[in-house]
This record gives sequence, structure tokens and C-alpha cells, in this order.
Amino acid sequence: MNDDPDTPRGLSEFELIELFVERPPDPERIRVGVGDDAAVVATRGGVVTSVDTVVEGVHFRRDWATPEQIGGKAVGAALSDLAAMGAGSGGAEVYLSLGAPRGSDPEFLRDLARGAGEIATRHGAALAGGDTVASPVLFLAVTVTGHVNDPAETVRRGGALPGDAVAVTGTLGSARAGLWLLEDPGLPVTPELPAATRRKLIDRHLNAVPRIKAGAALARAGARAMIDLSDGLVADLGHIARASGLDRSGVAIRIEAGLVPSGDGVESVALAAGLDRLEPALAGGEDYELAVTLPPERVEEARAALDREGVPLTVIGEVLEPSSRREAGVHVELDGEPIATASGGYDHFG
Amino acid sequence: MNDDPDTPRGLSEFELIELFVERPPDPERIRVGVGDDAAVVATRGGVVTSVDTVVEGVHFRRDWATPEQIGGKAVGAALSDLAAMGAGSGGAEVYLSLGAPRGSDPEFLRDLARGAGEIATRHGAALAGGDTVASPVLFLAVTVTGHVNDPAETVRRGGALPGDAVAVTGTLGSARAGLWLLEDPGLPVTPELPAATRRKLIDRHLNAVPRIKAGAALARAGARAMIDLSDGLVADLGHIARASGLDRSGVAIRIEAGLVPSGDGVESVALAAGLDRLEPALAGGEDYELAVTLPPERVEEARAALDREGVPLTVIGEVLEPSSRREAGVHVELDGEPIATASGGYDHFG
Repeated sequence: MNDDPDTPRGLSEFELIELFVERPPDPERIRVGVGDDAAVVATRGGVVTSVDTVVEGVHFRRDWATPEQIGGKAVGAALSDLAAMGAGSGGAEVYLSLGAPRGSDPEFLRDLARGAGEIATRHGAALAGGDTVASPVLFLAVTVTGHVNDPAETVRRGGALPGDAVAVTGTLGSARAGLWLLEDPGLPVTPELPAATRRKLIDRHLNAVPRIKAGAALARAGARAMIDLSDGLVADLGHIARASGLDRSGVAIRIEAGLVPSGDGVESVALAAGLDRLEPALAGGEDYELAVTLPPERVEEARAALDREGVPLTVIGEVLEPSSRREAGVHVELDGEPIATASGGYDHFG
Repeated sequence: MNDDPDTPRGLSEFELIELFVERPPDPERIRVGVGDDAAVVATRGGVVTSVDTVVEGVHFRRDWATPEQIGGKAVGAALSDLAAMGAGSGGAEVYLSLGAPRGSDPEFLRDLARGAGEIATRHGAALAGGDTVASPVLFLAVTVTGHVNDPAETVRRGGALPGDAVAVTGTLGSARAGLWLLEDPGLPVTPELPAATRRKLIDRHLNAVPRIKAGAALARAGARAMIDLSDGLVADLGHIARASGLDRSGVAIRIEAGLVPSGDGVESVALAAGLDRLEPALAGGEDYELAVTLPPERVEEARAALDREGVPLTVIGEVLEPSSRREAGVHVELDGEPIATASGGYDHFG
């Protein structure tokens, strides 16, 4: 966090300090913030840390997203990893490493950092440090830290047990549908999408809303395994399936595609793109909803807790012992029959 | 820490996991490591975090440094920020965000990550997480976390008090001299440098050895303000001078240039480069030594503690109340007379 001789003109450490002063974090928690060699944060029994990095042209495009959205989505996606551990609801810290070309528009960089700071604040997190360097390509590496009283409180990927129900928060596929609409604004969707629906889908692609409170509520309601949906439902459930079971030998996760909740307009955008209508919800990425496994008898308690946050919880399947019929992994069925769909999303079924 | 769809071929999250398995960290401390949504680390009263980012062509060159050195220096420089807080001696975590062009040589990336892991291990830190993404330019954003029993234990930049002695660890200027030798291998140094001295200077530029134990010892010996020397002695003491004093109104730091310990061969390299012989020690960057202020009566205790680590401590000046004669800031004197030297280093005096 030292001043960098190769700092791009425009966003110096001092401007990160400004942003920090603009949003004074709880001094009881953040004892040393931006401007020293390192940040110092009072904590309890465990610190939960994740890193998420985005690069211009790979993860975002300046002609699609405002600088605030670019900064905000990077932070939102990083906080989503804390949500998936059931962490971060008692406050979190955000550390921003910003690489930007020399001669970058200072206003652009300031807006980007401001967008990052705004999303942090909105989700109870504070900008606690950072680093700005010159780079031929614009990138943002975001580190987030959350706190738990006991490391054992966190919900891991590998805790799914046969018999667990599998559920997801919110609706899926919207971010992928929004990406299609950005890539091809003339996509012939029938019936035509209401302007508000179209905007909402695009917004879902350009933003990431971390389900921090929902993640904490699910942890309290007995979540055994949890992950945030960044790669796509089937791919991400695959991470749970492979990491769970005795000696991580894996479990089988059966999901009923008909139960997976697609966002408004998602299925018609998929059809317009020439794909199966269920494709975005099953394989689209970047929804930043949570997938969770939990004992079936605790589903109602979890649903009620999420209701209070205004977040729907939908049971979409179950965890099974791997068998000769269903090996370890994810099994997508439609009305009880195995299906495979062509994938236009980030990950292919398998 | 999710699998990234845009991960460059070559270094997948699974290879980071390999590295993690190769160097199993203390499971009592790191409860969840690479491979989940976030890492979970048991901690005490405070967590100390810093971020340090390096970009190819800006901070390193592949034709000068091995991949192990690139990864190792990035981690060493980040850990140096913990050292400057007096933190990290009880263990630390390293989170690696690696951006690399698609089609990068997997062996190169693996060596880079291995170099990062090796330096971490050597200094009592463990690789606890990371993220790999595709990027047109190679970069490494390194986040490090250390732990303290009480946030108040950490040594900040702004604690210098008039009357304090100002001291530095080790010798200075070597990294800057090594950079000159890399930039101009034919530099006519007189008398000719012994091959071992030349190699040592270049090594100091290509590596960063964080003074973690020395930093902790200085904290225990009453350090009031501390910073690691990454920008250059005068520039970094300037950070202490400006951050200290009542209401951060600043203090004056007077240093006697003749007391500043230059590394072996540094002065002759400076003269060969056409600069003042004291230039690299005063203004060169990236030595990653520590500059500290402490009550004069505790200097001997601090020196004895550092002796046990094999690290010299040299008093080079004192902290003064700002006055009409010496305003807040850094004042370099030679035999008691103010001097100004042309700067070939990162920062100019003033």
C-alpha cells in the first residue's frame, strides 16, 4: 500500500484516501485504514478472505458498463464469495488493487473506485486499503475479508450429505440473457420484451448483488454446503458434488430442470438465441445467487428466514449416494428423465 | 476464488491447489484454504492486510528475472508491508491473483506460483487462496494477511515524536544499484566490481526480503513509527514525517547523510552512473529495509534484538519539532549542512 512510483496519473493513493474519508468506516473495527503500510482490522475468531479479479476485454467492456458498474460488479462478485461461506453479514472489508494505463481519465478512475465503494457500503463493507499501479490494461483485483466468531461456523462446498435438499435463492439465467441482449441488441425476442424487463436483464449482467444476508441466514438455518452461482448452476453444483462425500469421493446431485426458477424474460431470450429455454438458468453464469444443500426438515425454516430478506428460496433437487445409475456429479432431469442440452453458457454439462 | 471461465490455459485453480498441497499450512490456523469460495483463517484480536501489485513491463521484465524471482519478489514486497507494521511474525497468509495471457507457458506460470509459494514459506506465510484470470498483460496482485493479539500492537507511520531517534535496518541503495547494472551491464564502475558484489546488487533488485522478524523485534523494542523502504529512504521518511505530529501536522526528520549505510559497491556504481555516491542509499527504492523512529533510550535494546536476527540497525538522524528553520518534512544534512542531490532514484528530495 505504499505510494507507487508507477501509479497512473489520475488515481493516486490520496484519492483512495479521499474515498475512504468520504465513507468513514466503523473505527472500532477498522483501526488502521488506507494510507498506512497495511490495514488493521479488529476481528473475532476467524477471518474469511476471497480474491476476485476482472480484466478489461475479458470480464468487462467499457462500452457496455459505466465505470461505477465495473467497480461495483467487481466488488459485488468478491463479496458474493463471502456470502457463499455464510460470512460477511457482520461487516466486511474491501481491498482494491487497480491497474490502469498511464494517462487514464482521472474522472473515469474515480468513478470506478466510487462504484466499488458504493457497493461495499451498501452491503455493510468498507474500503480498507488498496494499491494503484500503471498497467497497459485496466484491471481490478478485489480482496474481501469477513469475520466469523468461529471458523467452524462457515459453510463450505464439501459438506453435502445424501438426503439433503438442494435449493437456490432468487431466479437464474438473467445475467446470461442480459449478456445476449448486449451482444445482439437486435435479437428477435418473441413476444417483444417490455423495456423494463430488457433493462432488468441487462442490469443483472452489469451488476453483482451479493446475497450476504441470505447466506448468513442459510448458514444459521443449517446449510451443509453452499456456493455462489458465478460459473452457472450445473457447473457450480458440480463443485459441491465433487467436494462432498466421504474422503471427497463425491455425491450425486439430482436436479429437476422444471423446478429451476428462470428470471422474467430469460426463457424467451434463450429461444430467440436459438437455445433451449432452460439453458440460461442451468448453464448461464454470473447470477450471484446461492445454491445450497440442507437437511429437508430445515427447508421451511430457511425459506422463512429468506422471506424476511425478500429473497425466494426454491428447492430444485436432492443429494444422493453415488450409484451405478447415478455416479458422483450433477444429474439434470426433466420430468424425471435425464436431459442434456446444448450449452451457450460458460460451462457445458458433464 | 471460483473457477474462472477465462482462466488462462496452464495455471488452473487446481494447480494452485497442488501448490497448496505441496506446502500444507498449519491446519490449526488455516481452516479452509484454496479450493473453496473463500479461505477461513483462525485469528486473534486483529488482522493486518496489505495488497501489492506488479505488472509486466512496469515492475518486472521477463528477460531480467526468472519466473520464481518475479513471483517471489511480489510476495516478498507484500510481506514487507506487514513487517513495517510489526505484524506477520506469528504466521501470515498469501492470496495470489494472477493475470496471464491465454496460451501462456504452463511451466512459466507454475514456476512463478512456486516462487511465490517458496518465499511465503521461507517467511512463515502460507498460500491460502487465489484467483487466476486471462489478461493481455501478465500481472500479480498479492494480498497478505498477518495477525496480532491486539490492533493497538501494530506500529503505524504516524507515531513519530520529537526527540525520537531515526534508524534503518540493513544497508541501502543496493536494489537501485542493481537496477543500473541490469539496465547498463557495461557501466564502467571503477574499481571494477568483484563478480560476487555485482551479483549481490542485482539479486537485491530481483528479490525482496521482508524484514518480518526485525519488524516484530522493533515493535517490541518500542518503535513509534515504522515504514518499509520501497520508494526510497527520503520519500518513505517523508510519509512518516507528514503522518506524524499533533493532528498529523507533521514533524521534521533530520538525517545525516554520512550515517546512512550504503550497501557494498553501491557508491561506486552511483559514481559510474554520474550521480552523487549517496544517491542510491538516499533515494533508491525497493530495498525493503525498515525505517523506524523510537525513543533514544531504547535504541540499544532494539539494536541488541536485531543483532540476534543478524540484522544491523543504524541510527541516521532524529525527529524534531517543526520550526522556522526546519519545517515539517525530511531534512538531509551532510556534516550538519543541508544538502540537495540530483536524484536518479524514484523520488526527488523535498
